[in-house]
Parts: sequence; structure tokens; C-alpha cells
Amino acid sequence: MDRFMGEAAREARASLAEGGIPIGAVLVRDGAVIGRGHNRRVQEDDPILHAEIDCLRNAGRVGRYGDCVLYSTLMPCYLCAGAVVQFGIPRVVVGESANFAGARDFLEEHGVEVVDLDLLACREMMHRFILDRPTLWDEDIGALE
Amino acid sequence: MDRFMGEAAREARASLAEGGIPIGAVLVRDGAVIGRGHNRRVQEDDPILHAEIDCLRNAGRVGRYGDCVLYSTLMPCYLCAGAVVQFGIPRVVVGESANFAGARDFLEEHGVEVVDLDLLACREMMHRFILDRPTLWDEDIGALE
Repeated sequence: MDRFMGEAAREARASLAEGGIPIGAVLVRDGAVIGRGHNRRVQEDDPILHAEIDCLRNAGRVGRYGDCVLYSTLMPCYLCAGAVVQFGIPRVVVGESANFAGARDFLEEHGVEVVDLDLLACREMMHRFILDRPTLWDEDIGALE
Repeated sequence: MDRFMGEAAREARASLAEGGIPIGAVLVRDGAVIGRGHNRRVQEDDPILHAEIDCLRNAGRVGRYGDCVLYSTLMPCYLCAGAVVQFGIPRVVVGESANFAGARDFLEEHGVEVVDLDLLACREMMHRFILDRPTLWDEDIGALE
């Protein structure tokens, strides 16, 4: 697996081990991870701590994001894609989008390059989680009936 | 001033008093404020704590947002508009958009009703802040050169 996606997947597994939603992300600049995070909705009872948001928060006040790449194990939703577009992150690499189509079109319409690695390991982890905890997943993406 | 926009403006003034960016927000359901917040980029050194995000965080795990209204003293950027769209908040009321056009089109394209109260008090507070701290404002909206 791509080294940085491997780091994102490690974050996702850490979240799962904490009883949380298994999505992880890292922010990379000049070949180095400058921020990492994972979904903490359950852990912190916080609805906005999607993996990418937690990662951007942990990266701190980066200032300019024009030379950054955001890696996430899953295609970003509108919240996280909105952060990418607003902060001007030019490239997003995702582990998969089979379990969640996310906001790829929105990202691309705003000039963000999106690379979908379509990795079996990411697909399986998320698929299993959604089968196990469908209500929690629906809550996370604002899809509760 | 509209009662809820008054609460959002109070949050904005609290942020200014703390040395932060004067943008405030409240989340309303059934005529009651269920979450409030303000921009905390400076206060917490946190790039994702825009006013609306801080407000949604403080509201906690609301679950369904279909009967909520988000009030913000300024038109939401893509990050905050992305949260609105993803969580299914159907209505956004803003104090002004003269200082920042934000993501109104994106919100409306996704079926969100946007009401711009165009209030002088909100316009003046933000205008003065942008004149005083242009670099901080550019940082907040991802517009640093």
C-alpha cells in the first residue's frame, strides 16, 4: 500500500480499536506527514470530527495548503471536501469510494485532483463497519431517517 | 435585530473580545438555541473552528438536522456550507455577505434556503476587522498569497 495511505489506514484502525468509525486521514507536505487524524464522533461525542477534519485540526495553522496532499481512507463527504476547497488543498488521494461516493464531483468542479486507489483493505474495513453499525454510519453522514 | 441573529452577534463580539475573528453562529430548533459558537482560530490555534463548525460541535450529536436553522453573522464558506449540506440543515440565516460572498450558490444548489439579513451592525464589525487584520482574515478563508 502507498506509504501515506498506509498511515491513513493505521489511523482508521486506531479509531476502530477505540470503538469509533474506521476512517483515517493524513496531510502531507514535501513528502512528510504534517498532520494525522481519525474520525472521533464516538470517542469525543463530536459530530464535526470526521477523519479529514481531525487531521486538518491536528496539522494546526498551516497557513497555505497549496503544496499539500490530503490522504483519506474514504472519499470525503461535503464537510471535508468543503474544507479542501476552502483551504485550497490541490490534491486528495482516497483509499476507496465503493462504500461512499462522497463529494468527488464537487472537489473536481473546484479544480481538486482526486485519486481513488480503490484498495481492497480500505473497502473491506468500511464495508464491515457499515454492516455492523448502520445507524452510527448514517448519523456520521447526516443520513438518519 | 432578529433574536437569534442577536445571539450570533453576541458570539461574534465575544470572539473579538478574546482577540479572535468576530464571527458567531447559533443552531436553532423549535425556537430554541441548541448550540452556539464562534470562530476560535486564534483562541485555540485551530484552523477548522470557524464559527459555524464550533457551533455544530457545541450542539453535540444532534442526529437529525432537518428541523434546524443555522444562524451566522457572515455567509458561510465552503467548509461550513459543506457541513450544512452534509448534515441536511435546510435553512441558513446570515447577518451579511458584503464582506464575504461565501458559498451561497453551493448551498442553494443543494436545496438549502439562504436568507441574508444584510445587517449594518454585522457588516461594520467584519469590515473593521478585515481592515485591521487582513492577513489573519486571509488565513481564515485559505486566501493567503
